[in-house]
Amino acid sequence: MAMDASEETLRRAMSDKQAAVDAQGNTVRDLKASGAAKADIDAAVEALNALKLEKSSIEKQLQATITGGSDVGTLSRDAFRQAVGNTLERRLFYIPSFKIYRGVAGLYDYGPPGCAVKANVLAFWRQHFVLEENMLEVDCPCVTPEVVLKASGHVEKFTDLMVKDEKTGTCYRADHLLKDFCKEKLEKDLNMDAEKAAELKQILAILDDLSAEELGAKIKKYGIVAPDTKNPLSDPYPFNLMFQTSIGPSGLIPGYMRPETAQGIFVNFKDLYYFNGNKLPFAAAQIGQAFRNEISPRQGLLRVREFTLAEIEHFVDPEDKSHPKFGDIAHLEFLMFPRTEQTSGQSAKRMCLGDAVYEGIVNNQTLGYFIGRVYLFLTQLGIDKERLRFRQHLANEMAHYAADCWDAEIECSYGWIECVGIADRSAYDLRAHSKVVIAPVKKELGLAFKGNQKNVVEALEVMDEKEAMEMKSILESKGEVEFHVCTLGKVVTIKKSMVTISKEKKKEHQRTFTPSVIEPSFGIGRIIYCLFEHSFYTRPSKAGDEQLNVFRFPSLVAPIKCTVFPLVQNQQYEEVAKQISLSLTAAGISHKIDITGTSIGKRYARTDELGVPLAITVDSTSSVTIRERDSKDQIRVSVEAVASVVKEVTDGSSTWTDVSWRFPAHSHVSIDE
Amino acid sequence: MAMDASEETLRRAMSDKQAAVDAQGNTVRDLKASGAAKADIDAAVEALNALKLEKSSIEKQLQATITGGSDVGTLSRDAFRQAVGNTLERRLFYIPSFKIYRGVAGLYDYGPPGCAVKANVLAFWRQHFVLEENMLEVDCPCVTPEVVLKASGHVEKFTDLMVKDEKTGTCYRADHLLKDFCKEKLEKDLNMDAEKAAELKQILAILDDLSAEELGAKIKKYGIVAPDTKNPLSDPYPFNLMFQTSIGPSGLIPGYMRPETAQGIFVNFKDLYYFNGNKLPFAAAQIGQAFRNEISPRQGLLRVREFTLAEIEHFVDPEDKSHPKFGDIAHLEFLMFPRTEQTSGQSAKRMCLGDAVYEGIVNNQTLGYFIGRVYLFLTQLGIDKERLRFRQHLANEMAHYAADCWDAEIECSYGWIECVGIADRSAYDLRAHSKVVIAPVKKELGLAFKGNQKNVVEALEVMDEKEAMEMKSILESKGEVEFHVCTLGKVVTIKKSMVTISKEKKKEHQRTFTPSVIEPSFGIGRIIYCLFEHSFYTRPSKAGDEQLNVFRFPSLVAPIKCTVFPLVQNQQYEEVAKQISLSLTAAGISHKIDITGTSIGKRYARTDELGVPLAITVDSTSSVTIRERDSKDQIRVSVEAVASVVKEVTDGSSTWTDVSWRFPAHSHVSIDE
Repeated sequence: MAMDASEETLRRAMSDKQAAVDAQGNTVRDLKASGAAKADIDAAVEALNALKLEKSSIEKQLQATITGGSDVGTLSRDAFRQAVGNTLERRLFYIPSFKIYRGVAGLYDYGPPGCAVKANVLAFWRQHFVLEENMLEVDCPCVTPEVVLKASGHVEKFTDLMVKDEKTGTCYRADHLLKDFCKEKLEKDLNMDAEKAAELKQILAILDDLSAEELGAKIKKYGIVAPDTKNPLSDPYPFNLMFQTSIGPSGLIPGYMRPETAQGIFVNFKDLYYFNGNKLPFAAAQIGQAFRNEISPRQGLLRVREFTLAEIEHFVDPEDKSHPKFGDIAHLEFLMFPRTEQTSGQSAKRMCLGDAVYEGIVNNQTLGYFIGRVYLFLTQLGIDKERLRFRQHLANEMAHYAADCWDAEIECSYGWIECVGIADRSAYDLRAHSKVVIAPVKKELGLAFKGNQKNVVEALEVMDEKEAMEMKSILESKGEVEFHVCTLGKVVTIKKSMVTISKEKKKEHQRTFTPSVIEPSFGIGRIIYCLFEHSFYTRPSKAGDEQLNVFRFPSLVAPIKCTVFPLVQNQQYEEVAKQISLSLTAAGISHKIDITGTSIGKRYARTDELGVPLAITVDSTSSVTIRERDSKDQIRVSVEAVASVVKEVTDGSSTWTDVSWRFPAHSHVSIDE
Repeated sequence: MAMDASEETLRRAMSDKQAAVDAQGNTVRDLKASGAAKADIDAAVEALNALKLEKSSIEKQLQATITGGSDVGTLSRDAFRQAVGNTLERRLFYIPSFKIYRGVAGLYDYGPPGCAVKANVLAFWRQHFVLEENMLEVDCPCVTPEVVLKASGHVEKFTDLMVKDEKTGTCYRADHLLKDFCKEKLEKDLNMDAEKAAELKQILAILDDLSAEELGAKIKKYGIVAPDTKNPLSDPYPFNLMFQTSIGPSGLIPGYMRPETAQGIFVNFKDLYYFNGNKLPFAAAQIGQAFRNEISPRQGLLRVREFTLAEIEHFVDPEDKSHPKFGDIAHLEFLMFPRTEQTSGQSAKRMCLGDAVYEGIVNNQTLGYFIGRVYLFLTQLGIDKERLRFRQHLANEMAHYAADCWDAEIECSYGWIECVGIADRSAYDLRAHSKVVIAPVKKELGLAFKGNQKNVVEALEVMDEKEAMEMKSILESKGEVEFHVCTLGKVVTIKKSMVTISKEKKKEHQRTFTPSVIEPSFGIGRIIYCLFEHSFYTRPSKAGDEQLNVFRFPSLVAPIKCTVFPLVQNQQYEEVAKQISLSLTAAGISHKIDITGTSIGKRYARTDELGVPLAITVDSTSSVTIRERDSKDQIRVSVEAVASVVKEVTDGSSTWTDVSWRFPAHSHVSIDE
């Protein structure tokens, strides 16, 4: 996030030129005031205009540098996003939830084609990770009691800093307001001097690290107000992002909707370890809904209040993080963005994954293996290799317990978006849930409390983790502790000899340790949104009078694999279409018949807009035309063979080029658009 | 629920006999008191004993009648349930959620095999309903704003009646306490007279219809107290079963976790109708989590606080509920339990579905079609045909707007359990969400309010449905209404001519109507639990010293399709096993290699207990043994052919019997248990 060298040079040139313009302006004024010769004044004015022209040229260069310099500037990015968004919403890929009730920010429905794409992405995830890697998949509830999320730290720390409009009470994310302020200043105020610009850039770089007090001070310093009303803002304070609820009718068991799926795996670690024959390494996986009550959701489908996560927890011996299948992916080469490249102002570079692990840039083989598998997963879905990078977390981004962390970031119209996090989380999560073992020493307790022993034992055993750990620390420092036994209605003195309190750990081969956890965590909705953008393009209609929309989805994720069109409305053709439909169903190929009388060109356009790879046009009773979406090429295939040809192409066993060689091309142009 | 004729006869016989015993007892006492002859006394005592013996025989018959009369009495049902439950929990089909934190009632995790079974059931559901019927699948959030659930009636009516222990505050479902009381009395108090028994039976029959007052009166009448403490109970009051939360940081938008998935479809009706080319009929479907904060969950996996629902909403012209594919399922015959059979005390009977619709027992073809499709779905999953019935709702069970309703009930150790509801819900749900259209008449408003017109128009347009409908009714009755315009800070008078308020309806072919909705709604967790029970059996081990557990899952739902065992730990065999594993993965068959040195018999037992249909034992490097789970038959197949044979059998294109004919049997007994 360091300021670009050329930007800094330009900003300095801008302020130098501004100073020169000001000085020359004064010169002109002085000349005029002193009644100088017209020729002198004209010369001075000409010099002033030349300076202004030079400044304007620098301003243009600076503007271009800030907005990325390329042809795809801010404006065209917005236009592209809008074109994709319009198509997605018009064709019901997604729908703002509850829109007949004016909607709720940050909640979206997947309509039929979006829901099919999502189901395909999840099925492929299950195939690529769970089945191929023999992972243990679990399915845990969303409703989670507070005690679990206290142990994991979410109750205390899963917060964003919020400010309120002091008059209307409207809530904003404090860091977003500061970020918007800095970005807008940098983009719009081209006369700002280089020092000031560097200061704002620095703030953007450390935004995530600012405390409530620091954020509040900056908001005051820059005079940032509520964006809608211009009212003053409150000091920032933490707002917990979990949706709170209450479990059971008594109102006494506080609970939350889970903010991630991982905790469901951690609390089951012991059972899963046993299920795996008490052997490491092994991986557990979970696909499910997660919930975050965002303060003010923006960025459409990228920041929502409920979303599908797919998470893997790979448990491994902390002293041996090698991976037996690392060789399978070590040859892969793709864009990586290590820490050093980021801090030295360089950009992401193409690296060989094997080298990255060998050179210690990626911490270990298992982490590297998952980076490679995630790369294969995303690119097979249709994510553009050139707009995908793996960015290493900077030291200040990582939790203190994490060993290393890489995000798969995908570039879309909103910039580079974190879509998968791949973290070596060390042993933190398991330790957080490791159960406290309270072992009363009955002999000692019997001697001390006689008939009351049973009550004391029971009271000791039902202590929660916090109480138990407090007792442990007091016993260790003072040797005894006062303890209230509610079933006796009195306080007794517990001595160190009367109870042992310890945390459970895994024992393997007589070595006591907590396994490390490597966690690839997938934001499915974000991946799908980026996939929509990367798959979208437009091309002119045949008549050239409009732009037609196309999604170039691979068959793997296309919402349906083909459509069947009788060329004209006629009973014979419709019969053939039904017959083909039955054979497609038998072959397990999702498809749709379109028997509307619309022109075939319009029907192709409609189907391209849903990203359907193949269309079958029934134009005779013996053979039909198959048309491929992106090339628009057409081949002639017999009615009997059509289902198996479509199956070959859509399940990937043949490419379109392969089958194009085997069947005659169709050149009857009039049936295309 | 009318009392069984023989039970009533027996209860009457019991009380007659009791009276006779009492009378004879008095006779004996009188004889003794009056110093009668020993022979007379002896004869009287003998008669008394004979009467007691007769009573005891009647008592046994009565007991047998109450507990079902069969060998599978209450006790063995419990034992069976426990055996299944132990196996399911030990093999991690499911795990009580958060059990390391002592768990939460009514929340369960699916562990690896359970999760795989669930994924298979859902994939088949999608294939059988969504793909084969071309349904529009959607995926909506669980978090739902209150306004939606107010319109659907859930905020007001989605309640159960609750009572509290007056001293400890523990909560109970009022109807459950009354039900338990009646059932226990009927089962244990065999001396109760027939009238009293009939009264309790009558209560059980109308339990669902009792108001809070009626329930409270019965609880008082029978002196029912808190089961654990015997403390008195509060009066019953309604408790809303939805988990409540709050959306956004302001705390001003109340929300709930959805109690069903259907509302997400209803609020999108208009868009989906448009997506379908503005044509009826069409069906939408949704699979997702639903949440119900049960007062005191019991019955294990059958009554939980979070569960997966799969719901279909089939929208149809209310005047034409015929179905084009009804012919495909009309021939099906299975157990149906129509209303008349229930009220006349008969039992479910085998009927032909076509006849049931023809005779008007099932209201219409579309409802009948879905009943047939549900039957096929459940039986293909492995639900026992003989323990599946379709029970029609009695008039008092149905919502007043429903036309007809049938539940698919599956018999398990808890009795007959509703697993799928198939309701013709008429047009109620769409009407509840039909949007109010507020159309201000600007010309009239302009004349009346001049410069303030804009404020008045805006205030009219943002009225919610309730306000708008109130205004509409006042305008219709009085012609004008007082209306507060907050942006003007004053009340204005709105006349009938200034605004039109109406509810949107679908127009098709110039006819205005709201479509009817036919709703099949599947409780996936209940279906899976019943499937577990129906698939479970035990058989003696070879040595005969223990009972081995088996799940006879069809391949379709089995958690994995086969296991691969090298007969002995040896590098050659392990290489072959790996080679077979690669070819199974290539064929898309989920499987697991077990290279532990455990005896092959033990490994078979382990895999039978997970319901894995086939096991491949590598006992040479050229050919291997395939063993089928239920028959324990074995065939010899070459290493090259094994994956394709397993695929044939597990995808259903061949049966085990088919392939048994094609390959030599393996009779080397020693490798089996």
